[in-house]
Order: sequence, then structure tokens, then C-alpha cells
Amino acid sequence: MRQIALLIILLIPTLCRAQDDISIGKKYAIRSKILNEKREYWVHLPKNYSNNQYAPAHYPVVYILDGEDGFTPGVAIQQFLSRSLYAHVPEMIIVGVLNTDRTRDLTPSRSSLNRNGKLLYENSGGGDSFFQFLNEELRTHIDTTYRTSDYNILVGHSFGGLFAMHVLVNHTQDFNAYIAIDPSLWWDNKKTFQEAQQVLKSKDFKGINLFIALAHSEEKGEEYIRHTNSIRQFCEEVLPSHPENGLRSAWKYYPEEDHGTVSLPAITDGLRLIFDGICLPVKQIPFNPGLVEKHYQQVSEQIGYALIPSEPLIDNIGKYCLSMGQEDAARQLFQYNLKNYPDSPNARLSLEKTEKKESDVRYERKK
Amino acid sequence: MRQIALLIILLIPTLCRAQDDISIGKKYAIRSKILNEKREYWVHLPKNYSNNQYAPAHYPVVYILDGEDGFTPGVAIQQFLSRSLYAHVPEMIIVGVLNTDRTRDLTPSRSSLNRNGKLLYENSGGGDSFFQFLNEELRTHIDTTYRTSDYNILVGHSFGGLFAMHVLVNHTQDFNAYIAIDPSLWWDNKKTFQEAQQVLKSKDFKGINLFIALAHSEEKGEEYIRHTNSIRQFCEEVLPSHPENGLRSAWKYYPEEDHGTVSLPAITDGLRLIFDGICLPVKQIPFNPGLVEKHYQQVSEQIGYALIPSEPLIDNIGKYCLSMGQEDAARQLFQYNLKNYPDSPNARLSLEKTEKKESDVRYERKK
Repeated sequence: MRQIALLIILLIPTLCRAQDDISIGKKYAIRSKILNEKREYWVHLPKNYSNNQYAPAHYPVVYILDGEDGFTPGVAIQQFLSRSLYAHVPEMIIVGVLNTDRTRDLTPSRSSLNRNGKLLYENSGGGDSFFQFLNEELRTHIDTTYRTSDYNILVGHSFGGLFAMHVLVNHTQDFNAYIAIDPSLWWDNKKTFQEAQQVLKSKDFKGINLFIALAHSEEKGEEYIRHTNSIRQFCEEVLPSHPENGLRSAWKYYPEEDHGTVSLPAITDGLRLIFDGICLPVKQIPFNPGLVEKHYQQVSEQIGYALIPSEPLIDNIGKYCLSMGQEDAARQLFQYNLKNYPDSPNARLSLEKTEKKESDVRYERKK
Repeated sequence: MRQIALLIILLIPTLCRAQDDISIGKKYAIRSKILNEKREYWVHLPKNYSNNQYAPAHYPVVYILDGEDGFTPGVAIQQFLSRSLYAHVPEMIIVGVLNTDRTRDLTPSRSSLNRNGKLLYENSGGGDSFFQFLNEELRTHIDTTYRTSDYNILVGHSFGGLFAMHVLVNHTQDFNAYIAIDPSLWWDNKKTFQEAQQVLKSKDFKGINLFIALAHSEEKGEEYIRHTNSIRQFCEEVLPSHPENGLRSAWKYYPEEDHGTVSLPAITDGLRLIFDGICLPVKQIPFNPGLVEKHYQQVSEQIGYALIPSEPLIDNIGKYCLSMGQEDAARQLFQYNLKNYPDSPNARLSLEKTEKKESDVRYERKK
């Protein structure tokens, strides 16, 4: 009987594997010393992260604030855009950061706004502590736990967008790219807006990417007009005023999206804009395999980071070249893959197979 | 010892609950007699489906073809758009239908296309059998397994879009709404295109909704031009030519999306267009609670189906009214909720609380 109990205990992990569940990530929590509280975060690892067929790769990380709402769309968008030979973004790790006190954490300064004598947003201005938590505690933990590349993207909406702008201004180099969605630039008499205006004049933003999204709204109240106007003014006047600062920036107005819906197209467009150019002209590659390296070089220069194409992507394009009868192109791509992933048994195998096939052909010709 | 073993067995479901997994649905398979094969499908149930706080509700169902690619975006989009007081779509069940032989199933007729003397798409033309499977086997199973309302939406991309158009033409009333994304209307010398052209002249499409999305593409090959032109011609010339047929249709050209990326905005826009008008003017409701019923009546007329607002949505808007000090409005909404969900303990409780509070106020006034 004891053996049976033991057997059952040993079997539990197998019995438990909920193979029928469609999981897009896992929930974790970390004890933050800085914030003196437990913080929940969700992690999605890309499809090939644990695929033993390929060499263990390192992945960019997308940090999504307001993870409760933004995590699932973020995962869906990155999965969808990275899924085929025509990938528009690389495979990436998605980290959703969940809220405890949203207003406190995402606002860089304390509000003095009153309504009918009552202080609004009383518990605000904790942005710097939250940044410390995000950058020192959470990010360090993510970087030591997962195979992250050194490319990090920060995504925030509304107060989260304001926070992203605050980080861009004050901790510019700590993230490589920023997606600020309908950011609350009106906050505290446009404090962050003005700080940004100042640093954009003088600071070096080379290698930094910024995308700002501006939503439309049916609501025409005074507050909303202030919100919209501050973003539009920033995008139209401040953003383009100092091209010499090296910031690679873009913005877009979404006439059909309101403050609540704009994140879906904004995350899509923001991620795509950062990596603009990595979508390969697949049909030309069998006849010009050098295009792959050329595309990745161009994107690497543009984002200020040496981006290497994923092993499965290049392997699959190599196989596509083989299906088109272009063995030279395939071999060139497999060699390129092996150069990027020297420890990959798969990359070596693909190359050896092609070389063997070619030597067979030569042997056949000799006969 | 036997008791321990028994205890462990009884505990397995609890031990197994992978609480740290972020699950967006479950994988199932059904044995299809019609197709004589096992077919996989994925199901997402909306957030409040099993929330005991509310009365068990019935939900519209979105069937997404090519479920491998479309399911996760479909879930993310419906979650995101239905999540707040400003919901743009109702909570819905999402069913992803996975492929075994995509070309066979999604093409309504057999191709006679040749390239260099070789028949292309040899195994094609199984659309009618696949429809039978989808409508008779899978849908019957879904309708008997889950609390579905009688409102069904079919979403297909490329060949899946062609299939959706084929169903619209030949089995019009079997779905209420169709989202055809960059559909392959060029197929078989525009067979489905021409059939649609015919039936749009004569058939009654009252209560049926259709959204067609057209992508842009960098690829300018002959095939692609045929693909794009056939969709554009259909949307510009055929679709608006018989307004008397009652079909509620819309289409959109996406200059920034290619054939591979267009599904993300197309599913978003398609679902939103079907339910256009259900996003409530939340801030006006405390002063005019009748707007809720008015909005839902208008949308119900427009989609040809009596749509009832979800219990949690109205309950939350009622609570918002209370927070604004508008108790009359709140009571009216809680009454409306109880009318729609007479068995809901929550709806009764919300109403009773408001009534009690009001009688307390009256009592206080009397004193």
C-alpha cells in the first residue's frame, strides 16, 4: 500500500499536466523591498524558447504596464507578428507588470489637483520608487531567470504612458524603446511634458526608439481636451524639433480608437515600427540570400542594437530555398545560422545535409 | 495506508490546479463522422461564464477558422473590447477550429489551376463537407455543451474568408454575422464571387451582417493582383448594388497591413462593427439611465437579434450611478437587470440594498 501511495505521489506531476489548457504564460510574484509589498507579474516565453531542436537563444523583453489588461493583447500581438517566414517582429519575452496602487506608481510627481476643495489623486507621485522596483528588482530578476538579450521595451498606456515618458526623460538608457499610448502628459501642469522638452534639446538619444499613440474620443469634456491637446502638441511641436538628438521617434493619431481601445493597434504599430525592416522579402531570398543579413544590419543600425535573426526563421527560409531548388542559397543561409548559433546541432545538421546532397550530386555527375 | 492513498487521489484535482498558469482556453477534439477524422478545436469561455455571483447567462459564439493562428488574437481582442464599462462588444465564447487539410476544407470547389502542366491545389473542393461538419457536428456539440445564445459569428482569413463567403451565399441563415478577411475570391475563376453576385440580387439577407477586410501587399505578382482586384471589385461594385436585400455590410481597406497581418485589425473592426452602438455613454447614464435600454434596442434592431446587456456590466454601471449619488438611476438599472436575469441573487441584492438605503433615507427625513 505504501508503494501505491508513493507511486501516486510520483505520478502527480504527470497526472496533473493540464495538456488541454491553452496557456499563454505564468503568474509570479516578487517581494519588493523598495515598495515594501508583494508584486505580481506575468511572463510569456516565446514559442521556441524551450525548443531543444535549436540552440538556446536570447530574447528581447517587452515590459507591459497595467499587465491585467495589456498582457494578453501583448502576447497575442507578438505571437501573431512573429509567427511566419514574414515575421514583422522577433520572438520576444513578454512581462506584464500588475498593479497594486496604479496612481501612486505610475505618476512621477504628486498632484495638487483639487475638485470642489477635495484633493484629487491624493496618493500619487510614487513613480521614482516604482521605477527603482521595475528596473532594479523586477528586471534583475527577469534577466537572471530567463535568457534575455539586452534589448528592453517599455509599454505604458495613460498613466502608464506618462510613466514611460518619465523613464525616457530621466533614465533614458535603461530601456531601448518606449511605447507611450495616449500618455497623460497633462499631469501636474505638464511637468513631464516640460522635462521632455528640455532634455530633447540637449541629451543624446542615439539608439533610443519612441512611439506615441494618440486616441480620439467622443468625450469632449475639459479634462479630455487638455489630455488630447497636450499629446498632440508634444507630438507635433516638441518631438520633431531636435532631430540632432538622435531619438528615433514616430507617432500616430487613431481617429477610430478611443482611450480604452487604442492599445490594441498601438502595441501592434509600436512593436512593428521599432523593428521596421526585419520582415524579409521571402520570395527574393532564394535568388539573393544576402538580403537576410542586409535587412538585419539595417534594422540593427536603426535600433542601435545588434539584432540576430532567429535560428528557426533562417532554418525555415533555408528549407524554403531548398524547395525552390536553390541549394546554394540554402547552404549560405545554413552557414549564416551556424555562424550565429555555433552550438546548434540543428544548424549543423541542416548545413551537412545540404553539403552531403551537393557532394552526392557531384559524385553522380562524375560517374 | 489505504486511507492515505484515497486521500491523495481525492486531493489530486486540488494539487493539480496549475494556479500559476495563464490559461485562455482549453483544447478539445471531436470525432467527425462526416469528415471521417478527428478534429481539434479550442474553446475560450468569457470571464464571467462561471462567476456564481451572477445568473448563468447565454453568450454569442465566434467561430474562428485557422484556429492555430486566429484563436489567441480572437480571445485577446474580445477580452480587451468587452472588459470595461465602455465595452464595445459583449462577452463571447470563442471557438478556434484547427486544420487538418486546410485547402481541402476551405475551398468550395475543385481547382483546375495548372502551373507548368502540374495541377495546383489537387486536393481541394471539400468546403461543403467541412461546412456540414462545422454546422452539424461541431456547432451542435458546442450548443449542447455550453450556454450559447443563438447568435453565431464566422471569421475566416484568406481561404477561410472564401469559405465564409461561400457559407454566406449558400447557408445564409446558419450564421448571423460573417467576417471575411482578405478572402480568396479569385478562387476557381471567381466562382463564389459570381454566386454571391447572383444571390445578393434576389435573396433576403435581413438580419445578416458582413464585414470584409482588404489588405495591402508589397508583392505585386500577377496572382496577388488578381486576389486584391477581385476583393476590391466585390466590395466596391457588388456589395452596394442591392441595398434592398437587407444585408448590413461594411468593408475596409488596410493600406498598412499585408495578407499576413491584416487579421489583427480586421477581427477588431469586424466585431466592433457588428455591435456598433453598444458602447454606452457611461457618464450620461446617471442622469439618463434609460439610455442603456435605448442603446441595446437600437443594436438589437441593427443586428436582427435581441441582445440583452450583461448582468455584471449593468450592475457595475448601477454602482457607478450610486457613486455619483444618483440612486434613482441606480435603482432603475438594478430593476432592469432583475427583469433580464430574474433568477439572479446578485441583481435582487443590488436592488434591495438600494431600496433599503432609500427607505432609510425616507425614515431619516421623517425623524
